[in-house]
Amino acid sequence: VADPRFFVRAGPFTAGELAERTGARVAAGDPARRLTDVAPLDSATPEQLSFLENRRYAKAFAASRAGAAFVHPEFAGRAPEGMTVLATEKPYKAYALAAAAFYPEPAIRRGIAPSAVVDPTARLGEDVVIGPNVVIEERAEIGAGVRIGANSVVAAGVVVGPDTRIGPNVTLSHCLIGARCTLYPGVRIGQDGFGFAPDPAGHVKVPQLGRVIVEDDVEVGANSTIDRGAGPDTVIGAGSMIDNLVQIGHNVVLGRGCVLVAQVGISGSTRLGDFVMAGGQAGIAGHLTIGSGARVGAKAGVMQDIEPGVTVIGSPAMPGTEFFRLIAAVKRLGRKGQ
Amino acid sequence: VADPRFFVRAGPFTAGELAERTGARVAAGDPARRLTDVAPLDSATPEQLSFLENRRYAKAFAASRAGAAFVHPEFAGRAPEGMTVLATEKPYKAYALAAAAFYPEPAIRRGIAPSAVVDPTARLGEDVVIGPNVVIEERAEIGAGVRIGANSVVAAGVVVGPDTRIGPNVTLSHCLIGARCTLYPGVRIGQDGFGFAPDPAGHVKVPQLGRVIVEDDVEVGANSTIDRGAGPDTVIGAGSMIDNLVQIGHNVVLGRGCVLVAQVGISGSTRLGDFVMAGGQAGIAGHLTIGSGARVGAKAGVMQDIEPGVTVIGSPAMPGTEFFRLIAAVKRLGRKGQ
Amino acid sequence: VADPRFFVRAGPFTAGELAERTGARVAAGDPARRLTDVAPLDSATPEQLSFLENRRYAKAFAASRAGAAFVHPEFAGRAPEGMTVLATEKPYKAYALAAAAFYPEPAIRRGIAPSAVVDPTARLGEDVVIGPNVVIEERAEIGAGVRIGANSVVAAGVVVGPDTRIGPNVTLSHCLIGARCTLYPGVRIGQDGFGFAPDPAGHVKVPQLGRVIVEDDVEVGANSTIDRGAGPDTVIGAGSMIDNLVQIGHNVVLGRGCVLVAQVGISGSTRLGDFVMAGGQAGIAGHLTIGSGARVGAKAGVMQDIEPGVTVIGSPAMPGTEFFRLIAAVKRLGRKGQ
Repeated sequence: VADPRFFVRAGPFTAGELAERTGARVAAGDPARRLTDVAPLDSATPEQLSFLENRRYAKAFAASRAGAAFVHPEFAGRAPEGMTVLATEKPYKAYALAAAAFYPEPAIRRGIAPSAVVDPTARLGEDVVIGPNVVIEERAEIGAGVRIGANSVVAAGVVVGPDTRIGPNVTLSHCLIGARCTLYPGVRIGQDGFGFAPDPAGHVKVPQLGRVIVEDDVEVGANSTIDRGAGPDTVIGAGSMIDNLVQIGHNVVLGRGCVLVAQVGISGSTRLGDFVMAGGQAGIAGHLTIGSGARVGAKAGVMQDIEPGVTVIGSPAMPGTEFFRLIAAVKRLGRKGQ
Repeated sequence: VADPRFFVRAGPFTAGELAERTGARVAAGDPARRLTDVAPLDSATPEQLSFLENRRYAKAFAASRAGAAFVHPEFAGRAPEGMTVLATEKPYKAYALAAAAFYPEPAIRRGIAPSAVVDPTARLGEDVVIGPNVVIEERAEIGAGVRIGANSVVAAGVVVGPDTRIGPNVTLSHCLIGARCTLYPGVRIGQDGFGFAPDPAGHVKVPQLGRVIVEDDVEVGANSTIDRGAGPDTVIGAGSMIDNLVQIGHNVVLGRGCVLVAQVGISGSTRLGDFVMAGGQAGIAGHLTIGSGARVGAKAGVMQDIEPGVTVIGSPAMPGTEFFRLIAAVKRLGRKGQ
Repeated sequence: VADPRFFVRAGPFTAGELAERTGARVAAGDPARRLTDVAPLDSATPEQLSFLENRRYAKAFAASRAGAAFVHPEFAGRAPEGMTVLATEKPYKAYALAAAAFYPEPAIRRGIAPSAVVDPTARLGEDVVIGPNVVIEERAEIGAGVRIGANSVVAAGVVVGPDTRIGPNVTLSHCLIGARCTLYPGVRIGQDGFGFAPDPAGHVKVPQLGRVIVEDDVEVGANSTIDRGAGPDTVIGAGSMIDNLVQIGHNVVLGRGCVLVAQVGISGSTRLGDFVMAGGQAGIAGHLTIGSGARVGAKAGVMQDIEPGVTVIGSPAMPGTEFFRLIAAVKRLGRKGQ
C-alpha cells in the first residue's frame, strides 16, 4: 500500500468503471466489484486490482486472490474463480491508466510563490503553479497549467507549453518546450553545445546559435543535459522518454517515441528515427543516422549508421547475432588457450 | 598544509591522545610528542603525524621525519629513530580518525536562514541549520542536528534522520533518509522511476507508488540520482558509499556497506547483497541478484547474477580469471593475424 | 537565422573588417562587401559569411552563394565568382571569432539581485552581476566582471577570477577559479573526494583537505563534478574544455588545453599532460600518467599509463592499430566458427 505521506489515493472504483476508463472488457466475473487499490498478483486482496502482462507470471495469476485483473484475452480462461477478468490486448497499459485513476496528480494549486522572481515582461498562462525562489526571466512564456518546482530557473525568451511539469532545481534557456512534458529535478536544457575550434594557443569557442525544441509529451530524467544546437536546432521528438543522467549533444535530432535509458550519451549532429531504443550507458558517436525502430543494447558503442529495425550490441556495436557468435568464438579460443 | 580559507585546524594533540582516540598503541617513542597536523610520509615534519598503509611505501616510512605515524605492528620495527610509533591493525582507518580530530566539521550554527521557506506543518528538530532559500514543504520532518545547504528542496512528507548533512542544490521527495547520512550537492532522490507501458500511440506512464529508503550512515555523491520504487521501495543499505553521477533505478535494493564508484548505473529491481563493490562506469542490468562481497570491475557490464564473493570484469562481465585469459588469447590471435 | 528571442545580432560588418578581426587576408573579391550574418555554405546568401574547413565540403564551397567565406589559402582558387575570399590557415577558428562578433555576449548589467544573499565579509569586484537567490558565503572573493546565474551557491572562502561566468544552479566550495572561465548550469566543484578507509564495521571517511584549482579560460559542462583533493589539490589546467556530466576525482591533475567529451570519468590521482583528448564515456583508472597529446577513444577504459602522443581505443585500452587488428582477427574467427 502506498505511503499516505507521499500519495493520496482516489476511488474506490468498480471493475466496470475501470474497464471503461482503460478500454478493457469485462470477460468474466462481477463488473460491480468494488476496488480500492492496485497491487501485485501475489499480494492483492479481493478489494484490489492487478494485471498479468508477462506469461512467466501465469501461475501467480491463476493463484491470485485479486478482486480483478487486466489480462490478455488468451489468458482470460486461466483466471481463478471469483476474479473479475478485464480482458485487453495491452494489460500493462490498462494497469498504468487504472493506477493513475487511483493515484491522480495531487491537485495542489498554490499559484505563484511570493519568493518567486518573475520578470514583468514574462507571460504566465492560467492556473500556473510557480514554486518558491523560481526565477523567470524577461519575455519567457509559461503556458496554462504549467507547474514549476522550487529553485528552478527559466531564462529569457524560453517558451513552455501548457500542462508541462518542471521539477525543482531545473535550468532552462534557449529552448521551446512542448505541452504535457515532464522535466525531472536537475535537468539542464539549452546551454551551449561543446563547440570550439581547437588551437594550441587556446581553443576558440564557437557561438552556439541554435535552440532546443522539445516536442509534446516528452519526459527528461533527473540531471540529464540537452545542449542547444550550433546553428540548426537540437530536437527531441514527441513522446520520447529520456531517463536520468542522459547527455544529448548539439544538433541531435530524436524522432517520435524514442526511449533512452539512464546514462546514455548521444554525440553531436546524430539523428535518430522514430521509436529508437537505447539501453543504459550506451553511447552513439556523432554525425550518424539511426533508423526508426533500431535498438541499441545497454553499454553499446555505436560508431556506424544503423538501419531501421536493427538491433546492435557491443562496442564497437554490431548486430546482436554477430555479437553473440563472436563472444562464443572467443570463449572457445580462451578454453583452447588454457 | 590545508588552506585556512577552507579548513579550520584543531589541536595540537599528543601522540598518546591520538592513540587513545583511534585505538592504536604507542609501540615506541614518546607518547607525549606534541603533534600539530597530518601530512604524507615524505613531507611530514617532527610536529606532524603520518601513516603507513601500503607496503610499497615502506622505504618512505623508514626515511620519514614525521613525529609520529600509524603503522601495522609488523612494520613497527622499521620506524626511523625518534618517531613515535602508533601500532594498529588498520593504520589508514586510524589516520582517518586522527585527521578528523585535527579538522573537525566547522561548528557553524546559524539556525534557519530568513530566506528559507519552511511550511508551518513541517517539523524541525533541535539545532538544525537550514541554509538560505531552502524550501521545506508540508509535513516534512527534519531530525535534530540536520544541516541543509542553500537552495535545496525537501518535498512534502520527506523524513530526514538526525545529524544528516544535505549539501546545496539538492532535491528530495518521496523518501525517508536515515541518521548521519551525507548527501552531496545536486543529489536527486525520490523522483519517479523510469516506468511506462510502451505504446506506439504514446508511451503510458505507470504511477510510481514506492519510496526511497536511505538507511543510516550513507553517503551519496554529487549529482547522483536515486529513483523511487514503482510499488516496492528502493533501498540503500546502511553505511553504503555512493560516488558522483551514479544512477540507481527503481526498486533497487543495496545491502549494507556497498561501494559504488562514480558513474555506476544499476537498473531497476536489481538486488545487491552486503559490501558489494562496483568500479567506475560499471553497469548492472535489471532484475539481477548480486551476492554479498561480489566485486564488479570498472566499466564492467553485468548481465547475469553474480555469486557472493566473486569478482567480475568486462562487458559482458565474466570472472576476472576468465577475462584475462580471453584477452591474452585474443592478443595472441591478433599477433598471428599480422 | 538565429532566433531573436534568444540571440541579439550585431553588425553589419564589411568583409575587410572581419578579416582584420580574425587575422585573415582578403585574397579575392571586394573587401567592402557588407555582411549581416553567418550561415552554412549551402544556405548562405550574398549578405552572409561562411567558411570551408573540411575538404569534404569543397564542392559546396565552389557552389556557395555566400558573400564571403574563410578558407585555407590552398582552396582559395576554388571560390565561386563574386565571393569575397578570406584566406587563413585556420578557417574554423576565424569563423568562430567572426560569429562572436555578430553575436556578442548580451551586455546585461543588472548588478546584484535584491534576493541574492551575500555575506558582508565577501568581496565583490566591479561590474559583477549576481543573479536572484544566489548565495555567497563569508570571505568569498568574486573578481571584476564575474556573472553568477540564479540560485547558485558560492561557499565560504571561494575565489573566482575576473570575467568568469557561472551558470544558474551551480555549487562551488573549497576552490579557486581562474579568469575568463565558464561554468555551465549544475556544475559541482569542490565537494569531498571519495576517500574512506573501508571497514566492515562501517567505512570511515577520510577528511579531504585539498582544494580544486581551476586555471584560466577553462570551461566545465552542465552537471559535471570535480572533487577537491584529499591533501594535494585537484587541478584543471588553463584552457581545458570539459563537456557535460564529466566526473573528475580527487587529486587529478589536468595539463593545459585538455579536452574531455561528455560522460568521461577520471579516477583519483591520475595526471594528464597538456592537450590530452578523451572521447565520450571514456574512463581512466586512478594513479595513472597520461602523456601530453595522448588521445583516448570514446568509451575506452584506460588501465595503464599512456605515452605522449599515443592514441588508445577499447577496454582495456590499447593502441588504435592493435585494437583494429584484434577486432578484425576476432571477426575472422567468428566467421570461421559458423
